[in-house]
Amino acid sequence: MSILFDHSRQERIGLPETVFCQGKPLAVIEGLMRDHGGPWASPLLFTRLAPEVFAAVDPQVRALADYHTLSRTAYTAVLPTVARGRVAVVSAGTSDGPVAHEAARTLDYLGIPNTLFEDNGVAGLWRIARNLDDINAHDAVIVTAGMDAALASVAGGLTPRPIIAVPTSVGYGVAEGGQTALFAMLASCAPGVCVQNIDNGYGAACAAARIIRLLNEK
Amino acid sequence: MSILFDHSRQERIGLPETVFCQGKPLAVIEGLMRDHGGPWASPLLFTRLAPEVFAAVDPQVRALADYHTLSRTAYTAVLPTVARGRVAVVSAGTSDGPVAHEAARTLDYLGIPNTLFEDNGVAGLWRIARNLDDINAHDAVIVTAGMDAALASVAGGLTPRPIIAVPTSVGYGVAEGGQTALFAMLASCAPGVCVQNIDNGYGAACAAARIIRLLNEK
Amino acid sequence: MSILFDHSRQERIGLPETVFCQGKPLAVIEGLMRDHGGPWASPLLFTRLAPEVFAAVDPQVRALADYHTLSRTAYTAVLPTVARGRVAVVSAGTSDGPVAHEAARTLDYLGIPNTLFEDNGVAGLWRIARNLDDINAHDAVIVTAGMDAALASVAGGLTPRPIIAVPTSVGYGVAEGGQTALFAMLASCAPGVCVQNIDNGYGAACAAARIIRLLNEK
Amino acid sequence: MSILFDHSRQERIGLPETVFCQGKPLAVIEGLMRDHGGPWASPLLFTRLAPEVFAAVDPQVRALADYHTLSRTAYTAVLPTVARGRVAVVSAGTSDGPVAHEAARTLDYLGIPNTLFEDNGVAGLWRIARNLDDINAHDAVIVTAGMDAALASVAGGLTPRPIIAVPTSVGYGVAEGGQTALFAMLASCAPGVCVQNIDNGYGAACAAARIIRLLNEK
Amino acid sequence: MSILFDHSRQERIGLPETVFCQGKPLAVIEGLMRDHGGPWASPLLFTRLAPEVFAAVDPQVRALADYHTLSRTAYTAVLPTVARGRVAVVSAGTSDGPVAHEAARTLDYLGIPNTLFEDNGVAGLWRIARNLDDINAHDAVIVTAGMDAALASVAGGLTPRPIIAVPTSVGYGVAEGGQTALFAMLASCAPGVCVQNIDNGYGAACAAARIIRLLNEK
Amino acid sequence: MSILFDHSRQERIGLPETVFCQGKPLAVIEGLMRDHGGPWASPLLFTRLAPEVFAAVDPQVRALADYHTLSRTAYTAVLPTVARGRVAVVSAGTSDGPVAHEAARTLDYLGIPNTLFEDNGVAGLWRIARNLDDINAHDAVIVTAGMDAALASVAGGLTPRPIIAVPTSVGYGVAEGGQTALFAMLASCAPGVCVQNIDNGYGAACAAARIIRLLNEK
Amino acid sequence: MSILFDHSRQERIGLPETVFCQGKPLAVIEGLMRDHGGPWASPLLFTRLAPEVFAAVDPQVRALADYHTLSRTAYTAVLPTVARGRVAVVSAGTSDGPVAHEAARTLDYLGIPNTLFEDNGVAGLWRIARNLDDINAHDAVIVTAGMDAALASVAGGLTPRPIIAVPTSVGYGVAEGGQTALFAMLASCAPGVCVQNIDNGYGAACAAARIIRLLNEK
Amino acid sequence: MSILFDHSRQERIGLPETVFCQGKPLAVIEGLMRDHGGPWASPLLFTRLAPEVFAAVDPQVRALADYHTLSRTAYTAVLPTVARGRVAVVSAGTSDGPVAHEAARTLDYLGIPNTLFEDNGVAGLWRIARNLDDINAHDAVIVTAGMDAALASVAGGLTPRPIIAVPTSVGYGVAEGGQTALFAMLASCAPGVCVQNIDNGYGAACAAARIIRLLNEK
Repeated sequence: MSILFDHSRQERIGLPETVFCQGKPLAVIEGLMRDHGGPWASPLLFTRLAPEVFAAVDPQVRALADYHTLSRTAYTAVLPTVARGRVAVVSAGTSDGPVAHEAARTLDYLGIPNTLFEDNGVAGLWRIARNLDDINAHDAVIVTAGMDAALASVAGGLTPRPIIAVPTSVGYGVAEGGQTALFAMLASCAPGVCVQNIDNGYGAACAAARIIRLLNEK
Repeated sequence: MSILFDHSRQERIGLPETVFCQGKPLAVIEGLMRDHGGPWASPLLFTRLAPEVFAAVDPQVRALADYHTLSRTAYTAVLPTVARGRVAVVSAGTSDGPVAHEAARTLDYLGIPNTLFEDNGVAGLWRIARNLDDINAHDAVIVTAGMDAALASVAGGLTPRPIIAVPTSVGYGVAEGGQTALFAMLASCAPGVCVQNIDNGYGAACAAARIIRLLNEK
Repeated sequence: MSILFDHSRQERIGLPETVFCQGKPLAVIEGLMRDHGGPWASPLLFTRLAPEVFAAVDPQVRALADYHTLSRTAYTAVLPTVARGRVAVVSAGTSDGPVAHEAARTLDYLGIPNTLFEDNGVAGLWRIARNLDDINAHDAVIVTAGMDAALASVAGGLTPRPIIAVPTSVGYGVAEGGQTALFAMLASCAPGVCVQNIDNGYGAACAAARIIRLLNEK
Repeated sequence: MSILFDHSRQERIGLPETVFCQGKPLAVIEGLMRDHGGPWASPLLFTRLAPEVFAAVDPQVRALADYHTLSRTAYTAVLPTVARGRVAVVSAGTSDGPVAHEAARTLDYLGIPNTLFEDNGVAGLWRIARNLDDINAHDAVIVTAGMDAALASVAGGLTPRPIIAVPTSVGYGVAEGGQTALFAMLASCAPGVCVQNIDNGYGAACAAARIIRLLNEK
Repeated sequence: MSILFDHSRQERIGLPETVFCQGKPLAVIEGLMRDHGGPWASPLLFTRLAPEVFAAVDPQVRALADYHTLSRTAYTAVLPTVARGRVAVVSAGTSDGPVAHEAARTLDYLGIPNTLFEDNGVAGLWRIARNLDDINAHDAVIVTAGMDAALASVAGGLTPRPIIAVPTSVGYGVAEGGQTALFAMLASCAPGVCVQNIDNGYGAACAAARIIRLLNEK
Repeated sequence: MSILFDHSRQERIGLPETVFCQGKPLAVIEGLMRDHGGPWASPLLFTRLAPEVFAAVDPQVRALADYHTLSRTAYTAVLPTVARGRVAVVSAGTSDGPVAHEAARTLDYLGIPNTLFEDNGVAGLWRIARNLDDINAHDAVIVTAGMDAALASVAGGLTPRPIIAVPTSVGYGVAEGGQTALFAMLASCAPGVCVQNIDNGYGAACAAARIIRLLNEK
Repeated sequence: MSILFDHSRQERIGLPETVFCQGKPLAVIEGLMRDHGGPWASPLLFTRLAPEVFAAVDPQVRALADYHTLSRTAYTAVLPTVARGRVAVVSAGTSDGPVAHEAARTLDYLGIPNTLFEDNGVAGLWRIARNLDDINAHDAVIVTAGMDAALASVAGGLTPRPIIAVPTSVGYGVAEGGQTALFAMLASCAPGVCVQNIDNGYGAACAAARIIRLLNEK
Repeated sequence: MSILFDHSRQERIGLPETVFCQGKPLAVIEGLMRDHGGPWASPLLFTRLAPEVFAAVDPQVRALADYHTLSRTAYTAVLPTVARGRVAVVSAGTSDGPVAHEAARTLDYLGIPNTLFEDNGVAGLWRIARNLDDINAHDAVIVTAGMDAALASVAGGLTPRPIIAVPTSVGYGVAEGGQTALFAMLASCAPGVCVQNIDNGYGAACAAARIIRLLNEK
């Protein structure tokens, strides 16, 4: 089974191809990592790369990649830093960490400066209040939250920036799997909040990258 | 078809019987209104009594009831005012009016003083902020909200009072019918928020009444 | 019942308040239209304003508003045109018209130049192909589609622009109500596609406005 | 990754912060347990702390906490006993044990006296009948039940006390995961029954604590 | 469009064919009523026959049928009364009337003696208690209930008779449409409760008829 | 934790108590098995008793029970055989075996003679055709089927006997978990088919036992 | 609003464009009917054309179209009859008529000979049995059924022909809207049954047309 | 437990019986493999045969079967190659491999020549474009795709061939389990696309086989 790799995508839509590792055979992941890593490394991002899968990669190949456990991401190299623009990643609680960090690591990979603001759950409003000016100093805002996802609405009412909301699958009972958070974000009472699929930190970073690219083009 | 009426409920659980009018034949509603209204009126509450149904009641009988259009409620008389306790009813937007008013009118009927705080949607946080001390001066808080229902979590983090959340069916797309609001309230990140069925302002008032009754017993 | 109007929102998040008319009493709509229209008109947008409701407005007041039937929107005046940026609104079929036009009219109201590209359904790929260069000459792309919503993925793979997808409730069987389109857009195989609630053309325009505002600020 | 701990919550809403352990790294749980336990112990509650996670905690730290297996809870110390009020926890069957005990243990932690009444399933009505006077001697009633959750309605018709219903995820087929129990409780034919998220014994105790706090304030 | 009528079904499964009128053209209903009514009437049952449809039938034909408004049923004649067995139809509240009466009328048509016990909702347990001996004197029990449908479980624990539960679509919020009642009945904690489709009083009567037929065969 | 055992149920509803083992601690199962087994054995049925759990029971106690792997049931003794009546258990395919055998074993335990007819899937109609006379010689019919559950409708059209349908969770895709089979059975085009919860072979046997008890009473 | 019409589709995929009328403005329908009808009529099919909409068309234009009420279809002319192949349309009951006739009329329009077999519900198996040889003499089989849709499985086991199943929205309770029929067909125990969206008789005819085209090409 | 094997099916519907291994006991699978393999091998297909189950089969029996890991299929022999017709299997991404290969292997088994076209996801339209002429040279097209399944609509608009779409369970968030892909395929804007159950590559091959059989009959 050979995999046709999509090297030309970056030219067309400004986003390089990424390897979604979940369900992919180890040999394929290892092969791509070997080909893109090393002295003439070209940038390649691996998402949903579980620690136990990365641990099973040949140690020599593993050394070619920069791996981050919480976000389950790896890359062989990063893209050049953009000239303009930076992104705020705002999360509700520590359980949203994997998704927030996936977004931040994808931004790192795309060469987009970013800041992570954790623990802004709305059951304690002063948490986001103290970070608000810092957040507004960025050009786009990614919000990750699970459970009732009320942070998306509160943030949407406090920032004029483009805002990309990512529901997380954190929760139990009706919140299990993230659909409650997803629907609450889509039904947000704050206007202009955009939404990504559940746990899709990677997608949120790509959406932010489309905006940052626009800033750099003009 | 005769209806066995449950006159003894008040003794057992402290809540008088109520007539849920939706789907009931006009003759049944009219008969109960005639029997309980007039010079020797005994208190009886009618909920979900649509304006067009009330308009179809015999005018002489209609005059025996106090009807309120927005809440679709009527009563023949109210119960004596309780000695202690009062309830705040807090709504997110004007579309939650029918449910908030159903709660307030049921409290009126049960003899429980109450205050209605409207337009506290979290997309503008200063709205609830300016009302907070007033709200906390009450003994129980009913919160009604539709769409993403983020008000329940924000309020739950700001008040130490017993809090009863009622999702409303207001909304479109994923919010249509109120299940998103219901699930968001159940998954609230603020601890101890209790939830009622969608649009059940009457039930919220009964839940508050159980608490107020406790205050008066002690 | 009085309505507290949120005049200060524009300063905070850059988006003026809007009147969502569905479920609002006629008198409230009429009052707001009278207050904001006329010689000293201030801009106010009304969405989900059904033709039969607008027709019931006092003719003298009605004359103060610019009404558009297909999009069910009205405004008393528009905001000044922005210095930079314009938005493409791309729809799959004629049935997506009401949502696409709601987005376009909201952009008109916000002073953001925009172009509407209709009839780009993917069952005939040459339709979007012929419009592609024109679309890419805009700064943000709103895509509206119902049924299987495959247009969002195809467009997402063809444009580097920020892309905001709006599922429409057009369809029957499993497509009825728009959830299939919503989920297909969220699960899009093209990276960085953002999604709005079903039929929320207004929200898509607000999301685009946050991006255009950013361009004008820099 | 540092965790900002919310020490001031108790003042604001009368409920101390709690550590929801599911999905949290062991090191974080262990750190918090060490910091709050010992000679100058301050009260801290840990919920959803699986036996195998607790067993993995450093034995010296583990000795600082009072752990209860069935409820999967631990605390380093408890709050002072309240002056007034006590709570009845009523469960339908032995499978509801984990949730009923989570509620009871949270009450213990909050210093609220409580009694657990197990095995009151309505397929045998004499079970709850024999406990009724005892239950009514408490100030608030928590009901936990899975499957058809009919106990909530039966209890709601028998007690005038504030009643907080917690659906449990016990069951198979249509009852699997607890949504049938949740919906049956929300649709209860007994007025004023309040509902918590599935399996949320902790939330039910917090809701009861808001009521008990009210009794102690007056 | 001709309709092939299934005259031989009664021989095979002991249940005569029935005309489900919802969605059928008036002419078809009228034709069948004319053919089966009159001096040489043969028994034919019409279900889901709305009052406004029956009112539109030619008055001469209408006179050939025995129509019952609440149950929306009509028949041209009834089958001979069975030698042994009778059925109890037990309902929770007056809103379950249409379904309970559809069951009772179908039993009338099938020649099976039956008794209707209304208003046995479990929020007042003494209601079913006072009827219990009477109910148990029948050979099969049909239970109709909406909302939380707790009556099915309570009845299932009180009678040794075959028990057929019919959820009704009565309710609002999560109970709307009857799925909550259906699932609660399927998850009943009382063993051996059988369930029919929502609002299917006709089906419940047929299920009871299969049992009564067995009694008469032996 | 003690378990109140319901020894008196048999008198009231004619069905002895049963131990649903899933989720019960091993010690409880072992204790009940020890108490009811041995020289003065009293009949007790254990359902959903996984092979690995039974294997973990003390060998001396294990010897007191009659265990059946496929149905995951055990009993310490069986009830006396009834004087009249027998039940047919008809399954669609071999994957329905666990549920069909749970029904058959429960009938064995209740002293009700029964016959198991396997492999009657409707994709090959001659299978049920060849068994039809045998099946109709029984007094009640239990049908188990997964996937599209079409067997329930086909059987319902071929037998005049009381028919109890049990959907099984067998299947993949839309059939996974059994809800498609459940809904297809509830919507069966054959009149008078009764339905049990998914995989509830035990409940089907109890429903049949209520019918057989009726035959023996008369 | 102009509509770009897709005249070239027939060349590409062998299926001419069709006008789905539901939700389309009357003027658009009327215009297309006028343009394609008359002395130089070109074939155009209109589906989901409600009788009241067709009645509102200008009588002169209306005369240009062949309208069929039950199927809600119209065409201005039909395509030439194909040289080879014919299709059987098999329905379960009279309520499936609108969908079965939509399929048949679309086949008429496409020039494909077809036969309609109505009333083959599986609760009476002899119905389909008597038609089987006739059905098998066709080249493809379309099956329409609602409720439990068991006919698809039974037919799938009896014919070697390509089989296209269309669930209909006929039914109440769990069958309402057609999802139960859809899922039962997808989970059919007969191999190789293909499925269309709910009520999509048009789509089934197009699927059959792809097969018939293949026969004519070879 | 004996299994009645359906040797005569091939005559009736032209498709030989297949062993669906998931959930079947090892001994049954092994027995069938032994009976059909070896010197006088008769063709028998095993689907959903997990590698670990196949590995547990007696090595001597295992040697009698041709096993393919990715598709989880085995057969003892294949049917004779058909005289006419071949099938294209088109997949969106490498994650759809197991389903695409199950379809291809089933076609191999049925003696139907087929070609597999992998990696045709619509986020890069040139992928399917380059394969289009090759695909159209086949007689039927099977399309497998997960996530948003947009490939089915794009392919349906590009080929005149009979097209059988198989949704795959590949995906996360709203795409998890395959229902989004299933519904998007059913709602496809391309006419005449037929759909199979989620992950049912075997069923798609059987549907294609019904078409190929037709070609060979004529």
